[in-house]
Amino acid sequence: MIVVFDRVALIGLGLIAGSMAHAMRAQGLAREIVGTAKSAETRAIARELFCDRVTETAAEAVQGADLVVLAVPVGAMGAIAAEIAPHLKPGAVVTDVGSVKGAVVDAVGPHIPAGVHFIPGHPMAGTEYSGPRSGFATLFQNRWWLLTPPAGTDPAALARLRALLEAMGAKVDTMDVAHHDLVVAVVSHAPHLIAYTMVGVADHMRRVSQAEIIQYSAAGFRDFTRIAASDPVMWRDVFLTNKDAVLDILGRFTEELFVLQRAIRMGDGDHLHAYFTRTRAIRRGIIEAGQDTAAPDFGRGVDPAKAAAGE
Amino acid sequence: MIVVFDRVALIGLGLIAGSMAHAMRAQGLAREIVGTAKSAETRAIARELFCDRVTETAAEAVQGADLVVLAVPVGAMGAIAAEIAPHLKPGAVVTDVGSVKGAVVDAVGPHIPAGVHFIPGHPMAGTEYSGPRSGFATLFQNRWWLLTPPAGTDPAALARLRALLEAMGAKVDTMDVAHHDLVVAVVSHAPHLIAYTMVGVADHMRRVSQAEIIQYSAAGFRDFTRIAASDPVMWRDVFLTNKDAVLDILGRFTEELFVLQRAIRMGDGDHLHAYFTRTRAIRRGIIEAGQDTAAPDFGRGVDPAKAAAGE
Repeated sequence: MIVVFDRVALIGLGLIAGSMAHAMRAQGLAREIVGTAKSAETRAIARELFCDRVTETAAEAVQGADLVVLAVPVGAMGAIAAEIAPHLKPGAVVTDVGSVKGAVVDAVGPHIPAGVHFIPGHPMAGTEYSGPRSGFATLFQNRWWLLTPPAGTDPAALARLRALLEAMGAKVDTMDVAHHDLVVAVVSHAPHLIAYTMVGVADHMRRVSQAEIIQYSAAGFRDFTRIAASDPVMWRDVFLTNKDAVLDILGRFTEELFVLQRAIRMGDGDHLHAYFTRTRAIRRGIIEAGQDTAAPDFGRGVDPAKAAAGE
Repeated sequence: MIVVFDRVALIGLGLIAGSMAHAMRAQGLAREIVGTAKSAETRAIARELFCDRVTETAAEAVQGADLVVLAVPVGAMGAIAAEIAPHLKPGAVVTDVGSVKGAVVDAVGPHIPAGVHFIPGHPMAGTEYSGPRSGFATLFQNRWWLLTPPAGTDPAALARLRALLEAMGAKVDTMDVAHHDLVVAVVSHAPHLIAYTMVGVADHMRRVSQAEIIQYSAAGFRDFTRIAASDPVMWRDVFLTNKDAVLDILGRFTEELFVLQRAIRMGDGDHLHAYFTRTRAIRRGIIEAGQDTAAPDFGRGVDPAKAAAGE
């Protein structure tokens, strides 16, 4: 048990903040965890499950905190930063867990007073669930946590934050803000939008009933529905704030799709076969890198009915 | 142990045929399982793992068989049907396991002699693995197996085939050929093409390295790579033979994607939020229907590195 930060303030109490609190508690990484959220119900659940203390406002929560974690949707970060700025303890570390970094740096950066260390961050971990009951201590195990420290960041502050994240099981990497936003547009934002779109197409079909789509979803469709069940507010903000990179990737996606669509129309089997063979190699790389399970069908097992019934 | 068919001939010995053989053996549903495949190596593996007997040609395999299962890529069905037609036993049932039904009916139907019952079928089950070692007895448990019997199909033949499939754990439904091909275009074919495309886009990026894409894939991308690792020959044939329905769905998909893309460009957060909220309901429906696990992240667990290492 090594206390890395004496007092930690969590602003926003959803999946990520809850998982951080569970992970910190499991290993005694903080002496006190203070939390706040807009909803009184969320605060009450967090107080019961993982916070030592909750406050009604973010301004109160950050008082005396050695680490402040902004864990609200990206679009809400600027207002929170303005609210907490006058109350931050000198020498404190402020980080965030937003999926977009450029917009957060623009919105939060200007409010951070001298003597406070702002180190933007992005835990690349999550599930399709959200809210104060969805967190768990092992969420960050073996997952990447990207940090985008601005030039001139205090090395001691960075090392301390890194120590906390690594103690929670994460692998930490640092990256330039613009590159981060492009990388996540490819590996996360575009795939989510495409999944949402495919589910939307199915929802709008008239000649195929929704019952049929649900019944026969195991043929591929259901894989898309998992990420299309993610938190709508968080994802709205992601797309609005990482607009340029997302539109860039979607443009490439459409081009690529049109080429395959044309190959189908023209009956160009060689093109399709070559394309489908190359994409297999990427899957192999992901499994070898330990970033997914090699078990067939994600190891979902043979009887999802039982899983659904909680058996 | 109820023998449903005395002798079963499996033409093609990949994931589906292998799983059928394992399931039939586990419950004694056939007295003898004869198999054939183009590759001598595949035949040898099948002989060792799940066939009572293997033959070099399909013509030999079907001799005296009460049930013949065509389990080859859709594009190969016509030639196989022509080859086996003169050797089919009067009264035999012939079925297939192709993911497309219209093209199979067109290619196989004309070769089937009078007195043989051709009942096209489609097991909606599979994993991203292929080949004679990939099958397992429980693959069809709680999964749908669609049949598209032509008008005038012998009810006794249909009942017997249905009994076999249900004994292997499948839920059987019958459907019109054209409707089948549209349903699978939505729930399976279009999602697969879109997954292949997204993986292809990532593969073609220059400013983001392949190592980064693999490293950070857990943020959503890896869900796409599973289905994009499916058998390239099978999928080439699916797209070439279900062209009209697939192009119809892809057209809808592109329209829908453009509307969301425009909402991102225009900053229309309300549109995005409303869209992302609706898609959640479909996920809920799938879980309630027992067609996927409710476990977060497909229940992949916290340490895929261990799973990859076989731990």
